[in-house]
Amino acid sequence: MTQQACVWHEVLHIDKDTGARAGILHTPHGSFPTPMFMPVGTQATVKGISPRELEEMGAGVVLSNTYHLWMRPGSEIVRQAGGLHDFMQWPKGILTDSGGFQVFSLSSPKDIVEEGVHFKSHIDGSRHFLTPEKSMKIQMDLGADIIMAFDECIPYPAERAYAAKSSDRTTRWLERCIKAFDQTDKQALFGIVQGGMYPDLRQKSIREITSFDLPGYGVGGLSVGEPPEKYYAMLKETIPYLPENKPRYLMGVGTPDYMLEAIEQGVDMFDCVMPTRIGRNGTVWTRYGRMIVRDNKYSTQFEPIDPTCSCYTCTHFTRAYIRHLLKADEMFGLRLTSYHNLYFLIRLMREVREAIMEDRFADYSKSFLEDWGDGKYNVEKAPY
Amino acid sequence: MTQQACVWHEVLHIDKDTGARAGILHTPHGSFPTPMFMPVGTQATVKGISPRELEEMGAGVVLSNTYHLWMRPGSEIVRQAGGLHDFMQWPKGILTDSGGFQVFSLSSPKDIVEEGVHFKSHIDGSRHFLTPEKSMKIQMDLGADIIMAFDECIPYPAERAYAAKSSDRTTRWLERCIKAFDQTDKQALFGIVQGGMYPDLRQKSIREITSFDLPGYGVGGLSVGEPPEKYYAMLKETIPYLPENKPRYLMGVGTPDYMLEAIEQGVDMFDCVMPTRIGRNGTVWTRYGRMIVRDNKYSTQFEPIDPTCSCYTCTHFTRAYIRHLLKADEMFGLRLTSYHNLYFLIRLMREVREAIMEDRFADYSKSFLEDWGDGKYNVEKAPY
Repeated sequence: MTQQACVWHEVLHIDKDTGARAGILHTPHGSFPTPMFMPVGTQATVKGISPRELEEMGAGVVLSNTYHLWMRPGSEIVRQAGGLHDFMQWPKGILTDSGGFQVFSLSSPKDIVEEGVHFKSHIDGSRHFLTPEKSMKIQMDLGADIIMAFDECIPYPAERAYAAKSSDRTTRWLERCIKAFDQTDKQALFGIVQGGMYPDLRQKSIREITSFDLPGYGVGGLSVGEPPEKYYAMLKETIPYLPENKPRYLMGVGTPDYMLEAIEQGVDMFDCVMPTRIGRNGTVWTRYGRMIVRDNKYSTQFEPIDPTCSCYTCTHFTRAYIRHLLKADEMFGLRLTSYHNLYFLIRLMREVREAIMEDRFADYSKSFLEDWGDGKYNVEKAPY
Repeated sequence: MTQQACVWHEVLHIDKDTGARAGILHTPHGSFPTPMFMPVGTQATVKGISPRELEEMGAGVVLSNTYHLWMRPGSEIVRQAGGLHDFMQWPKGILTDSGGFQVFSLSSPKDIVEEGVHFKSHIDGSRHFLTPEKSMKIQMDLGADIIMAFDECIPYPAERAYAAKSSDRTTRWLERCIKAFDQTDKQALFGIVQGGMYPDLRQKSIREITSFDLPGYGVGGLSVGEPPEKYYAMLKETIPYLPENKPRYLMGVGTPDYMLEAIEQGVDMFDCVMPTRIGRNGTVWTRYGRMIVRDNKYSTQFEPIDPTCSCYTCTHFTRAYIRHLLKADEMFGLRLTSYHNLYFLIRLMREVREAIMEDRFADYSKSFLEDWGDGKYNVEKAPY
């Protein structure tokens, strides 16, 4: 079954030395350059950030979580509001996940059956049953530009037998999703490749999932706790085998080093809660790794977090002020750190695209990763 | 001793039927129309709101709290940052209180001596001593456009003997503040009228405080728990007797009904934490009183809080969405309710000024107060 492509990916250029691609993702709510980072707005809001701030920092597609919105306020209310775009007043692209990731984490193994997954709500403990058909129904109510197939994100580590069984089920669930989904004129359904950490299972999953000729593909089950070498190896075993003419979305990955490695293999889309989550803990990213702005040493540093950064936070406020806000439990402190971290990844993607277009991605990535180091506390090495 | 007036108030018009005044408050950081409402930024931030959002909503002068900034991050750090304007990036007016209000609430009666007040920090319990001279030193470090004399806000109820003794001390403390304050070119020191609920003590305080010919006067110790009739009576016994050519600031008052009554007597400036405090509890103001946006009935109302309001919140988001954010404990919900409530008072002041300029303040006030009722739950009566 072929979908009508209301979402499609145009590859503008492939880096001459790597698999890195620069392109444009076209959606019913605008066209956005790739590689892209998608801020996560779990409950129809990117934590602490307004839609106009997201626009200002250059966000294109925002991710929202089907499970959370289904539980609260309910997908029927979002549908009545005119869909997620109207509800949260985000005029650009939206992608919803399938709800599977959260539901699996709330369920016990015996709750997973061929038909779907039984689980208890994290809000009131009430019992629910999520199936491929139900996930499609909810995601159609939410009305995102891109919706994701209902799958199981295989945990790490997982036995080969479990990974094989789970991946096969994900394929069968995808078939049911495709049958249940009938808004192909307004939304695009992406399939999700699984296979655990087993190269041949990954290959099998790719063959099966891409056989449906969907408008895009997600890759799940990576960056789930495996060591970095395994992550890099699995990227190489997976990403290059996805169809060249379709967008490739690496789910849940959003640290700079992991993103650069994935882009090198040809990934186009990312999402991650880290920018806002670590921001709310008082930690910000710089090219030289993490900076714990809460630290006492910043209390009299009257300079921006990153003097080379053009974000609202860095062009207005000092480390000393932001530290004060964080120590004083002021909401505005979390706004400023979250803003900076989101901007940091959006800026990284912009620089990456420029590097790809100019066939110097490998150099860019190498230079960035040298400064980045292990991503922790290299700030003292910064030239500023 | 006469201060050089780097802050002064220009009366443009006095309403023909009442004592309501429309004017302009000139400060080293701009000129702002009066009557004005000053948002409170206790810890060098108006809770949840960015400086550019404050500018957008039309805020002029922002109040910040000396006690809080002294305790954290310390006034020396704010001084090193270049003062509060630079530290919090607020380019317009700033007023700091004296710290007295917070310190008195943390101290026991025996801690109050002629020299000053002994108290324990609310953060770490450490012991401190605040005096008129110390308050001036801290407020000079902070560098606000308007600074307030160190006084005691007499609680309600208070014995006449205590009120008399306290008011006399406030006068003596004012003399010491004036002696200790030597930045009259950059900052303006306002004296504060006390006197409790005793008309003759109020008159005596006015005579003494205004004898120093300061650039402006605060009125303290009103709206501290007394019944509304007493509040109105004391306004009449106090406000009209203040010098006409100086700005009159009614401290800590910021509910619409109390503000309108005070404006009728000739008050020019107000501050109050209520807009952001009730906003964080999920309550918003409308012309028809409070609306508890958290209530279940708003879950499917896809209209603004107030369809006649032009604020960012009301021009973009529905009651249903804001309710969802509040129920889901999302920071953005608190931003939206706080924004609306601040805008509500700023808009009220704008309408009041227009009414005064057109000699129809009494009509405006009457009509507003009819819709407002008791300020609670009249929203169902709204025509929208």
